[in-house]
Amino acid sequence: MNGLTMDFPLTVSAIVRRCDALFRHKAVTSRLPDRRIVRHTYGEIIDRSRRLAVALRRLGVMPGDRVATLGWNHHQHLEAYFAIPTIGAVLHTLNLRLHPDDLASIAHDAGDTVVLADESLLPLLACFRSRTAIGRVIVMARTGGQIGDAADYEELIARDDSSDHVPMDNAENAAAAICYTSGTTGSPKGVVYSHRAIVLHSLVCGMTDGLGVCERDTIMPVVSMFHVNAWGLPFAALMTGANLVLPGPCLDAASILELCQQERVTCAAGVPTVWLGVLATLDAAPGAYDLSRLRRIFIGGAAAPAALIQALEERHGVRVVHAWGMTESAPLGSVCWVTSDLDEALPEQQLAHRATQGFPVPLVEFRARSEQGLVPWDGISMGELEMRGAWVAKAYYGGQGEDRFADDGWFKTGDIVTISPRGAIEIRDRSKDVVKSGGEWISSVALECSLMGHPAVAEAAVVAVPHAKWGERPLAVVVMKSGCCVTEQELIAYLEPGFVRWWLPDAVVFVDEIPRTAAGKFRKTALRDRFRTHYGVT
Amino acid sequence: MNGLTMDFPLTVSAIVRRCDALFRHKAVTSRLPDRRIVRHTYGEIIDRSRRLAVALRRLGVMPGDRVATLGWNHHQHLEAYFAIPTIGAVLHTLNLRLHPDDLASIAHDAGDTVVLADESLLPLLACFRSRTAIGRVIVMARTGGQIGDAADYEELIARDDSSDHVPMDNAENAAAAICYTSGTTGSPKGVVYSHRAIVLHSLVCGMTDGLGVCERDTIMPVVSMFHVNAWGLPFAALMTGANLVLPGPCLDAASILELCQQERVTCAAGVPTVWLGVLATLDAAPGAYDLSRLRRIFIGGAAAPAALIQALEERHGVRVVHAWGMTESAPLGSVCWVTSDLDEALPEQQLAHRATQGFPVPLVEFRARSEQGLVPWDGISMGELEMRGAWVAKAYYGGQGEDRFADDGWFKTGDIVTISPRGAIEIRDRSKDVVKSGGEWISSVALECSLMGHPAVAEAAVVAVPHAKWGERPLAVVVMKSGCCVTEQELIAYLEPGFVRWWLPDAVVFVDEIPRTAAGKFRKTALRDRFRTHYGVT
Repeated sequence: MNGLTMDFPLTVSAIVRRCDALFRHKAVTSRLPDRRIVRHTYGEIIDRSRRLAVALRRLGVMPGDRVATLGWNHHQHLEAYFAIPTIGAVLHTLNLRLHPDDLASIAHDAGDTVVLADESLLPLLACFRSRTAIGRVIVMARTGGQIGDAADYEELIARDDSSDHVPMDNAENAAAAICYTSGTTGSPKGVVYSHRAIVLHSLVCGMTDGLGVCERDTIMPVVSMFHVNAWGLPFAALMTGANLVLPGPCLDAASILELCQQERVTCAAGVPTVWLGVLATLDAAPGAYDLSRLRRIFIGGAAAPAALIQALEERHGVRVVHAWGMTESAPLGSVCWVTSDLDEALPEQQLAHRATQGFPVPLVEFRARSEQGLVPWDGISMGELEMRGAWVAKAYYGGQGEDRFADDGWFKTGDIVTISPRGAIEIRDRSKDVVKSGGEWISSVALECSLMGHPAVAEAAVVAVPHAKWGERPLAVVVMKSGCCVTEQELIAYLEPGFVRWWLPDAVVFVDEIPRTAAGKFRKTALRDRFRTHYGVT
Repeated sequence: MNGLTMDFPLTVSAIVRRCDALFRHKAVTSRLPDRRIVRHTYGEIIDRSRRLAVALRRLGVMPGDRVATLGWNHHQHLEAYFAIPTIGAVLHTLNLRLHPDDLASIAHDAGDTVVLADESLLPLLACFRSRTAIGRVIVMARTGGQIGDAADYEELIARDDSSDHVPMDNAENAAAAICYTSGTTGSPKGVVYSHRAIVLHSLVCGMTDGLGVCERDTIMPVVSMFHVNAWGLPFAALMTGANLVLPGPCLDAASILELCQQERVTCAAGVPTVWLGVLATLDAAPGAYDLSRLRRIFIGGAAAPAALIQALEERHGVRVVHAWGMTESAPLGSVCWVTSDLDEALPEQQLAHRATQGFPVPLVEFRARSEQGLVPWDGISMGELEMRGAWVAKAYYGGQGEDRFADDGWFKTGDIVTISPRGAIEIRDRSKDVVKSGGEWISSVALECSLMGHPAVAEAAVVAVPHAKWGERPLAVVVMKSGCCVTEQELIAYLEPGFVRWWLPDAVVFVDEIPRTAAGKFRKTALRDRFRTHYGVT
């Protein structure tokens, strides 16, 4: 016996219809690459997006075609987010921080035929376009330079033909967007999001125990629109009517703080390294920014040190909420809210909880597996996190990476976690980064987060280095804060109270900077290569 | 091109799995018909629910079978909510306030074969069971009386065989529950909710701009579990981990207030008549109850007078949020949050907004139609509200009521509304209750809500009475507060500033009480019959 419920497909068009009906007056503020601030209403964004949709159809884009973007966070990029899926095409956000060779193979693999690129990124595009099937270039964020045979975005949408736009009646399982993994592990692989995945993900972003995105919010995704669709926030914002602030390429701490204050941002989101920079700027000039509207910052993409969470909150009154996700999960997997059972807990217990990645959101399920099978939820046993859920990938585009899926279909995240008795996960490592010493696992992330709590440490990464006796031993790679001084012995002594003896790094090396991935995370593979022989194994 | 997203069916089993993994420690508090308070954890509820599922299978219940309940709000009823759908059967909550003849035809129409009934309701069951296909009776909330050939609920689930429970891998479009409309218009008709409808509805209940249900909540559905599944709150509570307080049959104001205080309820929900009673009790003993935990009350099922919203808030510090829905929409259709554009508005403007039914929630869409076609969103033009959405009925069980669906599939709600330029609906009437005077419509609801703001008026209903010249004219039927006195002329004069002259009732009659439907709403058909000739037309 079937339910008698309307067939209401969960599509990006449904999100646009809602925003068009209820939120045309709400605001999108963009900082362009030339630092200009431009303002639009959602009504304008939607109308312009419809004209872009008509223009793309006119250019021959057909349902199922992949249309790439190569741009910073701004309103034209946002318009592309909605124009492309609503004509049945597939939005492919290229990561402008990747090497041109990677971009060439990604755009080739995806079969992109059209790209919308920022004018400032045309030189980058020129480095790889010839190795792809990209036949047309549309130039966004233009300042008036030469664009050759490319089309100007504004000219393209100048004709007022948005009434010609008939949104595709997409099936909810049709592809809406494709993102490639950032390649921290292995070569980039395409993750294809269905319309349904995006809508369900947006609903959960709007849940009080999700990200709580609501009409009263002004959301600033500091995370790039080419990283898992800016964590899905643009879709959630249009669905709920939250204002959007798009910071363009100006991601330095001062620019971010200035936008937060000026635009009365209530919610911002980005990777830990961004907020480490923000913290340093705030510490240098306490009280210089009015952040009273900022109700919460979501930190994800890598583990945030407890010291960062505590400092932003206690010294600057900014609430930090830890979240966890992956390209393969669109990305939201878990959020660390303080649950009611911790109301009476000591502040340090609450902080310890908040430094974990928290609980799976609705429609996402977790389990963890070691070589001995599923690990108990005891907060101690480590295993690789596996997940399933309503917006989790079931395969990669083209069928690569089959080994990332368990026999029963669960996705193997590659993250080594513990799961608390209540179900909160704590990322202890990437499976490739965990230090395997004498048959036991040492969490490089736990050591890093602790080191970054030392007042003289700006950044710290811990990597596994081959060792004759133990197989591998941890090595700490540390960047000192400018003007500070600390010794190897002092740092080891600083770690001692928090860890069993055999977890402590055998050595600390000081460097000027830690190499970063395109997503702003530590590139530990580079460190491992550099220090491979540090413990004498060649 | 399809998305590559996992097949993760949206089912009641997915809700239970989540609660089982994360919220086994959270609490369900029930008041039984004999006023005893009993407490369970969700872990206990889920285990007991699984045993009930196994027992129902043992009794021969097959996928697709309808299993009825006839009970108040308590933990056993809650267990049935989850046991029945997870074995693929269909939960049918019978409305114990209906006449036995109606219950007979409803249970017959649904094809119920098993019923779980409260012991106190066995006499009611005896009045109609012989006219149905109900072959088995399971007795809930038992106090030790004789139950004849019926089975005792606790004996049935005593055997610890919950490990035998293999939840059905239901398709998400399978039927999970059936509710009959309360019959305010026409004969009761069955609405069949799919698993998918229930899950999507629960997600939106958890949205900040939905009902905001979250882990930190303690939810008390004062609305009965036989009214649209207690507005879906039990499903939302298990999904989010909110505690539940189930008040049983003790729905008097003192009992409700006592539970709110004792159990630290953060969120309660019910029809306006319940809260009118609560207000009177609070007014009679200001400060007698500590309601500091109560963050919000949802009022729905009928329009709440602005005076009620204002009084509960200003005199007793209880935030009231207006919501609107129907059996046909599971029920959530709209919620009236104060949007950011009203932050700077005057208190009376905010209150006027809050007395409307607000904005459609995500995945629900509204339009309104008069005889001239779709009405403009101007806040003035009245039309019948039509809706579509991801949990809205596409048909009634058995195919009755086809005339309630527009040619393009939208559901005709039968509610006469205006829609503001921002998209907020205001219920002006049921289409059968609107007063058609000289070709124009007069909102009986607007007149009633205004009359109920008069200090001497306890309740007021306005009905259309046949009139020789104008076709119909409004008549006000008023119940005075005890100890108060007011005249017809005073009430008409009280209305005058707020309405155009021709909207004013031609007469006011005073009565001792206004007849109610089974859902606690005014039974206006009875009033119309009684006063049909009041203006001289026979």
